[in-house]
Amino acid sequence: MTAQNTATQHRVVIVGGGFGGLYAAKALGSSNVDVTLIDKRNFHLFQPLLYQVATGTLSPADISSPLRAVLNRHKNVHVLMDEVVDLDPHAQEIMTKTGRVPYDTVVVATGVSHFYFGNEHWKEMAPGLKTVEDALEIRRRIFMAFEAAEKETDPEKRKAWLTFVVVGGGPTGVELAGAIAELAFHTLTKDFRKFDTREAQILLLEGMDRVLPPYAPELSTKAKEALTHLGVTVKTSTLVTDISEHTVTLKQGDTEERLEARTILWAAGVKASGMGKILAARTGAQLDRAGRVIVEPDLSVPNYPNIHVVGDLAHFAHQGDRPLPGVAPVAMQQGEYMAHLIQNRVNSQTVAPFVYQDKGSLAVIGQNAAVVDLGFVKFSGFMAWLTWVFAHIYYLIEYDNKMIVMLQWGWNYFTRSRGARLITGEADLMSVEIGDDGEYHMPAHKPQSPVEV
Amino acid sequence: MTAQNTATQHRVVIVGGGFGGLYAAKALGSSNVDVTLIDKRNFHLFQPLLYQVATGTLSPADISSPLRAVLNRHKNVHVLMDEVVDLDPHAQEIMTKTGRVPYDTVVVATGVSHFYFGNEHWKEMAPGLKTVEDALEIRRRIFMAFEAAEKETDPEKRKAWLTFVVVGGGPTGVELAGAIAELAFHTLTKDFRKFDTREAQILLLEGMDRVLPPYAPELSTKAKEALTHLGVTVKTSTLVTDISEHTVTLKQGDTEERLEARTILWAAGVKASGMGKILAARTGAQLDRAGRVIVEPDLSVPNYPNIHVVGDLAHFAHQGDRPLPGVAPVAMQQGEYMAHLIQNRVNSQTVAPFVYQDKGSLAVIGQNAAVVDLGFVKFSGFMAWLTWVFAHIYYLIEYDNKMIVMLQWGWNYFTRSRGARLITGEADLMSVEIGDDGEYHMPAHKPQSPVEV
Repeated sequence: MTAQNTATQHRVVIVGGGFGGLYAAKALGSSNVDVTLIDKRNFHLFQPLLYQVATGTLSPADISSPLRAVLNRHKNVHVLMDEVVDLDPHAQEIMTKTGRVPYDTVVVATGVSHFYFGNEHWKEMAPGLKTVEDALEIRRRIFMAFEAAEKETDPEKRKAWLTFVVVGGGPTGVELAGAIAELAFHTLTKDFRKFDTREAQILLLEGMDRVLPPYAPELSTKAKEALTHLGVTVKTSTLVTDISEHTVTLKQGDTEERLEARTILWAAGVKASGMGKILAARTGAQLDRAGRVIVEPDLSVPNYPNIHVVGDLAHFAHQGDRPLPGVAPVAMQQGEYMAHLIQNRVNSQTVAPFVYQDKGSLAVIGQNAAVVDLGFVKFSGFMAWLTWVFAHIYYLIEYDNKMIVMLQWGWNYFTRSRGARLITGEADLMSVEIGDDGEYHMPAHKPQSPVEV
Repeated sequence: MTAQNTATQHRVVIVGGGFGGLYAAKALGSSNVDVTLIDKRNFHLFQPLLYQVATGTLSPADISSPLRAVLNRHKNVHVLMDEVVDLDPHAQEIMTKTGRVPYDTVVVATGVSHFYFGNEHWKEMAPGLKTVEDALEIRRRIFMAFEAAEKETDPEKRKAWLTFVVVGGGPTGVELAGAIAELAFHTLTKDFRKFDTREAQILLLEGMDRVLPPYAPELSTKAKEALTHLGVTVKTSTLVTDISEHTVTLKQGDTEERLEARTILWAAGVKASGMGKILAARTGAQLDRAGRVIVEPDLSVPNYPNIHVVGDLAHFAHQGDRPLPGVAPVAMQQGEYMAHLIQNRVNSQTVAPFVYQDKGSLAVIGQNAAVVDLGFVKFSGFMAWLTWVFAHIYYLIEYDNKMIVMLQWGWNYFTRSRGARLITGEADLMSVEIGDDGEYHMPAHKPQSPVEV
């Protein structure tokens, strides 16, 4: 292994192998510090494409990279598959389920999970999309809904099976709704015999007055147009006031409406992972309303210059009018900044505060349809879609053989096929069954993975 | 839809979408009969490559084809995702969980599941490989074992985590053992810091006196040589007498031996799916010791010329000294024969008995190593491996865009990488935990899918 005596090396512990943690670990690879990356999963997940797993285009492995494989050539990096349960800032130790890991500098990058605004019981009816297991559960629900529609003879009930509601009009909600519309209006049109998949209704609900609220208003307009063209019904200024197994209750102004829908997907709120609360309890760090840790200009926690938070879990308010958004580019840049800071620290040098280089935002609606905001220029349509494709492939390829994705997309582009539409999982496979009430039922979503490190 | 009046058409019901059922349905596609294909899964699984999912090379979707997509251009074919629970030969109806389906001719192709020779409780400790869920569970166990070894400090216990036992030296056992050896001795060698993956011990146990017992003896010898070269310890004439969470007890002659092993995989026995018993009860058909239905020369059940059994569930003893083996080519040819027979039946013509065209057998041991028996010629090594690769790609491509597999294999060939080594699933992700006894435990295998139609 390494020729140096690791006992004398600066010990860096990184908690979480998402964009922030992985980019920090990679940038510290083969350097003069000792790095331990702790994650409860054995792979990094390219979350921006998770909606394509949920809608049957890609397989989980296509957008995942085994952490050990990505980092194995760096002898100073040790990957530990474990779950962090606490942190002791005085002993300078991280406590995991199976032991203690000492650190000189710790980087916490555990991200966020879903938030149902105090209605956590909605989770069973309206799963969100953060993990591979979430994506496979959503995929199961979408394709089971079409199967149930094929068996259902009551037109009203069939309509409920063919009604898909996506709550939340941010990038994930827009991408999910667009992909479901492509399934219903293109991919699956010849697959069923008892009904026409084009009868499906796909609703995208957003509480604000436009979809993609953080983007420029003209792009929101373009995105809405593209969604409508694809067959999605976009309802803005619309709040969800209740969710049950069969229904969603909406409120638009003073009007309440109950909608029969058997597939309800959650892309609305996020809250910080449990590490936020642990940091607050152990260091006195302040949390924002979403539970994110308010960090100093160098991403450290106040009074603890060797405890840092990066990525979605960090609330960084030292640039612009609003805190930095919880998107992959911010996490990547913060991870790389941490590597730079730590190497300077080892050499007793200081670094300037973190500054985010905003290279633009993009969101995809469907084939040939996307919106791109590069700051100096905004555009939509086919060119935006190409930009989106290449940007994602560029980042995917950076750390694995994701030519597969390009090939899969190329194939899908011409065939509009979706090869990965398997119904799998732990739930009873024949899980749409007739209950005692004579109605079809699908067992409720069982949360499969703890979402917090 | 179809212009013809389906009420007057001959109604064919096919139960099971494996090789037998799917090949029958495809061959009847766009013909003058009305076909209903019933399966409890929504996809056909290319089972010969399932071991590559279990060992992290391929994703489930790479070797699966959505049944509706494969058959959607045939308007006379209706796919029903449902589970068959009974059959009424007098009313000529199939009973499913959600209804009844009338037939004029029925083709039962529900295959086989694992058999533990009366020790069904071994299933929890030693999962078998028949479904996508089985493969993902095995994948989870293999990669979790390496993760546990990285955390384990007791050398004896680490050795148990690094001991992999495959029970059964048929093609699946040989392929699994070879693939695990490639992981331990090539793919993962740089991934861990606390131990050398080359310490792993991979044992392949076979009760007969040679591996691949149905093949020619010289190929068994070649296969054993190739396995040994890869690092697999092959033990023939060896019976498993007990399995517990941590141990396998072997018996070789009069010598019993207890082996500490944390990963035990079952590739030994099969038994017929539940439809065999249903057919026996409803038609008086005879079953063999494995529960397979003994069929007439035209694959029908005695006295019921419109009830047929094809594939692994059929015991066909009208050709050669032994019943036909339960392999994909037999199922495919029987499926196609059924289509031929049914079309002749509609035209009131008879057909000759089924005759299996044996095109040879092959089994792969690892990269560049396979054995091929084409009857007139037997060979092994690189040319056999190439034959194996092209034979599998040929059959995969026949019904879907499985260029992906070829690309993945090409990539793996040069990099010896395995992209799909994700640890996923419903079990607690940090499922190797310290128990009350201070030892690591992995929760027992929970059978996830009913194995019988």
